Amino acid sequence: MPAERPTIADVAQRAGVSKGLVSFALNDKPGVSPQTRDRILEAARDLGWQPSLRARALSVNRAFALGLVISRDPEIITGDPFYPSFIAGVERELAPAGQALVLSVVPDEEAELAAYRKLVADRRVDGVFITDLRHDDARIELARELNVPAVTLGHPETPSPFPAVSMDDRAGIEAAVDHLVGLGHRHIAHVAGPARMLHGSRRRRAFEDAMARAGLPAGLVVETEFRAADGAHATRDLLSRPDGPTAIVFANDPMAIAGLGYAQRSGLRVPDQLSVTGFDGSDVGEHIFPALSTVATDAVSWGAVAARVLLRSIAGEEPGDTDLPPARFVPRESTAPPTDPTGTPTRTGR
Amino acid sequence: MPAERPTIADVAQRAGVSKGLVSFALNDKPGVSPQTRDRILEAARDLGWQPSLRARALSVNRAFALGLVISRDPEIITGDPFYPSFIAGVERELAPAGQALVLSVVPDEEAELAAYRKLVADRRVDGVFITDLRHDDARIELARELNVPAVTLGHPETPSPFPAVSMDDRAGIEAAVDHLVGLGHRHIAHVAGPARMLHGSRRRRAFEDAMARAGLPAGLVVETEFRAADGAHATRDLLSRPDGPTAIVFANDPMAIAGLGYAQRSGLRVPDQLSVTGFDGSDVGEHIFPALSTVATDAVSWGAVAARVLLRSIAGEEPGDTDLPPARFVPRESTAPPTDPTGTPTRTGR
Repeated sequence: MPAERPTIADVAQRAGVSKGLVSFALNDKPGVSPQTRDRILEAARDLGWQPSLRARALSVNRAFALGLVISRDPEIITGDPFYPSFIAGVERELAPAGQALVLSVVPDEEAELAAYRKLVADRRVDGVFITDLRHDDARIELARELNVPAVTLGHPETPSPFPAVSMDDRAGIEAAVDHLVGLGHRHIAHVAGPARMLHGSRRRRAFEDAMARAGLPAGLVVETEFRAADGAHATRDLLSRPDGPTAIVFANDPMAIAGLGYAQRSGLRVPDQLSVTGFDGSDVGEHIFPALSTVATDAVSWGAVAARVLLRSIAGEEPGDTDLPPARFVPRESTAPPTDPTGTPTRTGR
Repeated sequence: MPAERPTIADVAQRAGVSKGLVSFALNDKPGVSPQTRDRILEAARDLGWQPSLRARALSVNRAFALGLVISRDPEIITGDPFYPSFIAGVERELAPAGQALVLSVVPDEEAELAAYRKLVADRRVDGVFITDLRHDDARIELARELNVPAVTLGHPETPSPFPAVSMDDRAGIEAAVDHLVGLGHRHIAHVAGPARMLHGSRRRRAFEDAMARAGLPAGLVVETEFRAADGAHATRDLLSRPDGPTAIVFANDPMAIAGLGYAQRSGLRVPDQLSVTGFDGSDVGEHIFPALSTVATDAVSWGAVAARVLLRSIAGEEPGDTDLPPARFVPRESTAPPTDPTGTPTRTGR
């Protein structure tokens, strides 16, 4: 075990005074004679005593830390580029501000609520991020109850006293659909994230609205989780239907990459026989063949802005809501005009 | 701003006693009369007072938290499946133990040392993980200097007082080479991670040793970073050489997926004209086409075991080194016998 760091008691012993006097002297409070103060400061220097953030945290009732609780299957976190980028953005703000990030990864929503309660009860954090918003999200009420400052990623459905930092993901999905319709696709499917998550159902509604605007039916929707394997299964399901799609809009990149792989494995040429789009702009999607057309969200900026807003809330400001630039569609190689079953493009001038 | 939580001073005021007496009563110390103790406990209950982990942390000089500092380009973190899985494993141990994870993501090695110093100086953590070991790794000496318990992932080259939790990645690389040699490959290249990282140079040495055992030259090595884009560039470089390889062993999955994509984009059939293997077993690699043959490392278990070892060190035990089951090669679809330039397999019986 390492040697203990010097404590106030050690300084008191060395200076031959009480612990209380040391505390007064080190905190620069009145009531200590100049000679005694000098003797105490010298003893502190000799021993290499350093002020403890913990002691300061206790005296000002602050943890100087923010809490992030992620409730997802480890398998989803592993494949999903969102959280690593978001965290990188958060950290960019915290380090210069002398703040730390306390991270909890929990398996389900029950454990998630317990994790927030515990972070606050243990006074480990001064504020929390609320991500992956759900319908009737219990965390809004919980954070209010716990009296902890919070920031939500996106606007919750329930009234919320907390600032929201939002990125319109509808625009990206709509642009993806418009792009496919422009290429001549009429049978376009959507592989959606779980409907209990707001972004899952919002992306689905954006898909349905864009299809309606184009005068097309939006019945080809498969709802699933966000795992790569789910993307492959959904693609199998869609391609086995008699009214199978010529294009699929996926709600994230890992599902899209797996759907693309499934189609290729089944002998389809992508994009000629099936066009595919993703969401969230993973690094790997850019390098597969064909490169994945996707909706790019700047998760690093999202993390940085959310951290700044939360720090301002903790400082007693009322930062209000922030709208980040909307997610934008990035066409690459996985989208092209549809071909008829003989392989002839139905449109020219790609 | 939220209402302040009740403090010992609030309890003291409500019970009409001194703060010292409240502290004695709440900490169950002797010297408080039963009647006074009851009155204090009732006041605490009425106010909803809860014991503060911070106060307890201060009194026992513990943070009840572990520190993880990751020094990598955000772009690498985003694509790399290792850290999200490792963190999921760490969290699995911490939550039941009432411990938290404090995470720092820093851009370079200088910021990394500063981050460790600050975590310890601020007494935010009781112990630290040391990951991505490098040659002459300054963190071993720093952690010793800071008197902070630590655990290293793998064995450092310099003498270390800290327990190591290791997973032999040599075995996986050697199995990948043996598999390719068994399929008939003679021109096998390696795309290595940075040589300054121990696992980068160790995987390279494992490649060279396995090639030497097979009586083959191991000169086709490109050293690069761990980004997907680097995998694509290295593949372009290798394929443009007159003695270009028929198979490439990549040091991680994102590079391998990008290399595979680059080869396909260049018109090569994978695996018939180029075999490819990865490392770290990402979820996405299983779903691309052809599915990536790779070396599976169980990063979740690695995280869990490292957390347990670190908690034991903090508790004053001397846990010693742990060797996890070695990484194993998982053949999928991206490896096959090599073909000659006319496309005829040089071996049968695939």
